[in-house]
Amino acid sequence: METAYFNGKLLPKEEIKISPDDRGFLFADGVYEVVRWYEGFFYDMKSHMTRLKRSLRELRINWPDSDSFPSIADELIKINKLENQPSMVYLQVTRGVSRRSHSFPSPEVPPTVYAYAWSFKPESHLKETGIKVMLKEDIRWSRCDIKSVALLPNTISFQEAHENGLKECIFVRNGLITEGSHSNIFFVIDGTLYTHPESNHVLSGITRKNVLRIAEESGIKIREEAVQENRIRFVREAFITNTSAEVTPVTELGGNTLGDGVPGPVTLIIRDKFDAEIKAFKG
Amino acid sequence: METAYFNGKLLPKEEIKISPDDRGFLFADGVYEVVRWYEGFFYDMKSHMTRLKRSLRELRINWPDSDSFPSIADELIKINKLENQPSMVYLQVTRGVSRRSHSFPSPEVPPTVYAYAWSFKPESHLKETGIKVMLKEDIRWSRCDIKSVALLPNTISFQEAHENGLKECIFVRNGLITEGSHSNIFFVIDGTLYTHPESNHVLSGITRKNVLRIAEESGIKIREEAVQENRIRFVREAFITNTSAEVTPVTELGGNTLGDGVPGPVTLIIRDKFDAEIKAFKG
Repeated sequence: METAYFNGKLLPKEEIKISPDDRGFLFADGVYEVVRWYEGFFYDMKSHMTRLKRSLRELRINWPDSDSFPSIADELIKINKLENQPSMVYLQVTRGVSRRSHSFPSPEVPPTVYAYAWSFKPESHLKETGIKVMLKEDIRWSRCDIKSVALLPNTISFQEAHENGLKECIFVRNGLITEGSHSNIFFVIDGTLYTHPESNHVLSGITRKNVLRIAEESGIKIREEAVQENRIRFVREAFITNTSAEVTPVTELGGNTLGDGVPGPVTLIIRDKFDAEIKAFKG
Repeated sequence: METAYFNGKLLPKEEIKISPDDRGFLFADGVYEVVRWYEGFFYDMKSHMTRLKRSLRELRINWPDSDSFPSIADELIKINKLENQPSMVYLQVTRGVSRRSHSFPSPEVPPTVYAYAWSFKPESHLKETGIKVMLKEDIRWSRCDIKSVALLPNTISFQEAHENGLKECIFVRNGLITEGSHSNIFFVIDGTLYTHPESNHVLSGITRKNVLRIAEESGIKIREEAVQENRIRFVREAFITNTSAEVTPVTELGGNTLGDGVPGPVTLIIRDKFDAEIKAFKG
């Protein structure tokens, strides 16, 4: 039986009842985080905590117990006996339950806090072979820096990629490549590593941040600068990053084969250093 | 006790349990409609039905019983004894319940259908005095023509207006005035009625459509053309439209007093004809 977390309690997931008046259900008025459990530790929980708090602050959702996120995650792993399996914990916080109204509940109501854990099979082969991804106009809102549950544009865009046998949908806004539907993207042009700078048009990915650190430590030249769609022909390598895909090479982008159509050398350096760090953490 | 509709059944609202795996809760992957009950009939239910079906089609949400929307609405009015009260019915359809994944559930799952009714007090005095509204950058996605529940940008924008004592937040995208957080907006410049054309940046409001018809029948010159923010000084009149506000004059827009700061003559013609139609329907 699966045990999940709901408003302060651990209980069987099927007993969890979201009110139809929940602002998460009616307005997508909530935020989330996903953390990865590496059979013994959560990867960079501190950064996920910082980002969660920022998302809550930006939306003025008040969750006084936000510091309990790591212990909730720990408990979910333990109670579901996932200690020795690659797992994920998902946490969602909404503005709570209140009669439907565009304005925030007044007086304030407690937020809805929901979390659950699951074991998953990392798609390790894709980190070897690389993936093909789609390119598509970025139809999302202009606060992509907030990790909100207003993910409808992401899902319908990703679905289009999925139905075309592609593993991610990469967005282009005003001619500039921003990020994927649930990943950041990096490019190698002339030996320099490019990724969209932190802005309201991309999510500040935790893996993105750690990859930038690893690249810097490796002496790779970095430019946090958006790549124009019309410069794809100069791209020799690309990879996406997120909590589950870690560093996954991209060999084809919007129908264009990148470089030699296999994971490139800069990508492999970064992927391998990332993996080595995880291994070292495991001890 | 309040009775609501959930997946084919009428039941006490507090017994309705939305699964935490509902794609409405996790991804804002759903659409909605709100229809108004005028003590005897729903206003232009046919157009709301058409729009609902379009929203579902655009998102490829399959609700085979979508034709039952009018009868669900009727039943909710009756069972809650709202026949003789100004009331609203809200209906939401999501892609259903499935393990969290950006891609659509495969195989397909039944949609979640939720509806409820409530009596409300029309703010009739605002139709006399007019309202003051805010202007703000349009931070929404680029498929505002779909009436989706991904309303987070609308709620946080409206909240800002609300806290400033303003009754609506009007959006500006690339210098052009689009619409409000939950209304369309019309302007009168040099005696001509302007409103943003149907496009992916505005919702095709039912009241908007009927107001255009009324204006045409009244011999008012119409241009379905967006008004530039920098032309506000030429605006003599403005009004917003939606299902609950009907035709509500706007006397101040982003700090600019419009015309003489009172509802203008074209606005009043349209408002009064709209009201007269409702009265005539009531018989």
